[in-house]
Amino acid sequence: MPEHTVSSFDAELKELGRKVVEMGGQAERLVADSVTSLIRRDAALAQRVVLLDATCDQMQREIEEKAILVIAKRQPVAGDLREVVASIRIANDLERIGDLAKNVAKRVIAIEGEYHPQKLVRGVEHISDLVLEQLKEVLDAYAGHNEAKAVEVWGRDGAIDTMYTSLFRELLTYMMEDPRNISVCTHLLFCAKNIERIGDHATNVAEIVYYMVTGQNLPESRPKADASSETTVAFPGRTVQG
Amino acid sequence: MPEHTVSSFDAELKELGRKVVEMGGQAERLVADSVTSLIRRDAALAQRVVLLDATCDQMQREIEEKAILVIAKRQPVAGDLREVVASIRIANDLERIGDLAKNVAKRVIAIEGEYHPQKLVRGVEHISDLVLEQLKEVLDAYAGHNEAKAVEVWGRDGAIDTMYTSLFRELLTYMMEDPRNISVCTHLLFCAKNIERIGDHATNVAEIVYYMVTGQNLPESRPKADASSETTVAFPGRTVQG
Repeated sequence: MPEHTVSSFDAELKELGRKVVEMGGQAERLVADSVTSLIRRDAALAQRVVLLDATCDQMQREIEEKAILVIAKRQPVAGDLREVVASIRIANDLERIGDLAKNVAKRVIAIEGEYHPQKLVRGVEHISDLVLEQLKEVLDAYAGHNEAKAVEVWGRDGAIDTMYTSLFRELLTYMMEDPRNISVCTHLLFCAKNIERIGDHATNVAEIVYYMVTGQNLPESRPKADASSETTVAFPGRTVQG
Repeated sequence: MPEHTVSSFDAELKELGRKVVEMGGQAERLVADSVTSLIRRDAALAQRVVLLDATCDQMQREIEEKAILVIAKRQPVAGDLREVVASIRIANDLERIGDLAKNVAKRVIAIEGEYHPQKLVRGVEHISDLVLEQLKEVLDAYAGHNEAKAVEVWGRDGAIDTMYTSLFRELLTYMMEDPRNISVCTHLLFCAKNIERIGDHATNVAEIVYYMVTGQNLPESRPKADASSETTVAFPGRTVQG
């Protein structure tokens, strides 16, 4: 194969990788801004997040198109094929992350002006910090082809779930102790769930990076610890199954 | 090109389509069973849904692998390329649908034995009927390469959102009127949200089918009507922004 054709292929792979990194940065920004808008009750910032998510969607389409062209044109194999497929799959996860951030922002706009004690938001702040860290780390892992870092991110998925379960219980108790909290706590529950799912997608990306670099799959069952879908809170005087 | 090679390609395309239809059937089953398990409070059925979702995940991986092989081997263009890409994208949406059904089932297991008046579930039953109909119709549209049917499904997305917004309000009022309802209503809210999102994915599939058949995109903004993320419910005596 002529030398120039090989380096054209290299250039295409690099470009694909660059686009994924760029999209990752955009997704990070959306998540960070949506969380900030929640904590600061900044509806204007939230509005900007809602609008900016469209650029994420556009980037996902471009990456998918470009990757498919590369597959058709170069018929990559082995590590190169894994890289190209990884770009499609990671772009999908990043697009979902952008969507989830947008959903958080929409709820911030909804609860603007509502009865909103700061304590209700504190737990959401904690889980957001961890999820933002995961997202940053996994994008570094992708850019650096760093499978060890991918494994670390994958391993921390359980910690996020544990945090979410506690937060779920906490918000339920606020709702029970004061009905004025119900409406805003319901929105916060959805926000927390969205943030936890952003964490899940970061873990998906970690699995994809690991496979891209090593050709091996991480174990099917990641260390799950989100018990919130099995969590109920006992109402005083009633026996309720947990 | 030799005749047998062309018909091998045809056979590969047909096989890909068949796999998508099969996966679609599996996703329909999961959604129907998860909803039945919710309405009948059947935790055993819910448990089976949770386990069966893994087959959906497996099917998605197979379709993706097969599609990529076809792209690399045949370098399809125009309508053929659209078909192959559509199979990857629809498989992704079907995998999400399976996941969402699984999440509904997990919550059914959670609320088993909880204080659970039948009226709380009725609204969820209505939205589920519509979503199941959408899913069936869009899979028919795919199998029949029927863009008119795809447009119909796409157009009904708004009706699901309207229904979800009402249901959201209804469940909030149950929570406010009786704190014993809070825990189960929270789970029902998540169930309803998951079902609404299954509807969203069915609409995604409609958009993909339309593009696959016509080479044109449906309008960016589908007729959205889900106002629940902007919905709050006034607590007597307080002014609350809607």
